[in-house]
Amino acid sequence: MIVKTPKPPYFAVIFTSIRTEAAENYAEMSNKLQELAKQQAGFLGEESVRENLGVSVSYWETLEAIQIWKNNAAHLVAQEKGKNVWYEKYKVRICKVERDYGFEK
Amino acid sequence: MIVKTPKPPYFAVIFTSIRTEAAENYAEMSNKLQELAKQQAGFLGEESVRENLGVSVSYWETLEAIQIWKNNAAHLVAQEKGKNVWYEKYKVRICKVERDYGFEK
Repeated sequence: MIVKTPKPPYFAVIFTSIRTEAAENYAEMSNKLQELAKQQAGFLGEESVRENLGVSVSYWETLEAIQIWKNNAAHLVAQEKGKNVWYEKYKVRICKVERDYGFEK
Repeated sequence: MIVKTPKPPYFAVIFTSIRTEAAENYAEMSNKLQELAKQQAGFLGEESVRENLGVSVSYWETLEAIQIWKNNAAHLVAQEKGKNVWYEKYKVRICKVERDYGFEK
């Protein structure tokens, strides 16, 4: 689903990743983290797709909200497990959305 | 593939889309545009994934390069066809990448 975001500026975290073969608890943790993020102040939504490459973009009201999410206890556990088990490689990019526009039929 | 980007700041265009059923010339145009983008000064690369939702993130050295690409003749034709034929809905977000970090096994 395309996230309904407010008028810019707002912030985006682009998380691009390549998984390992290890699926251990990945789906459960992924669902749990999505639920937790939704409860956090400043979270606007996420657009997430995976083929071999995964691209997940989460949107946030402020940089502070991104920082608080980065340090969320359950998220810290997931980050550690991500490095040890789930991901072969990833990149995180923190962005300021300066302009946007859309189209709908 | 995860794009090798330079030290921030650089720029990202997040293109999130939902397709129509119409596939007419879509793959050809998509490949052609990727080739053209690669030839443009300031283009750094693209990360693109589609399930039902498509998320494509292209990276650029400057906002000017993004503007030039937006007005590229072949790209203008594709944008028009995108609205008329290929896309049900899309959103374009122009971002400044302020910070990044990565992990590799």
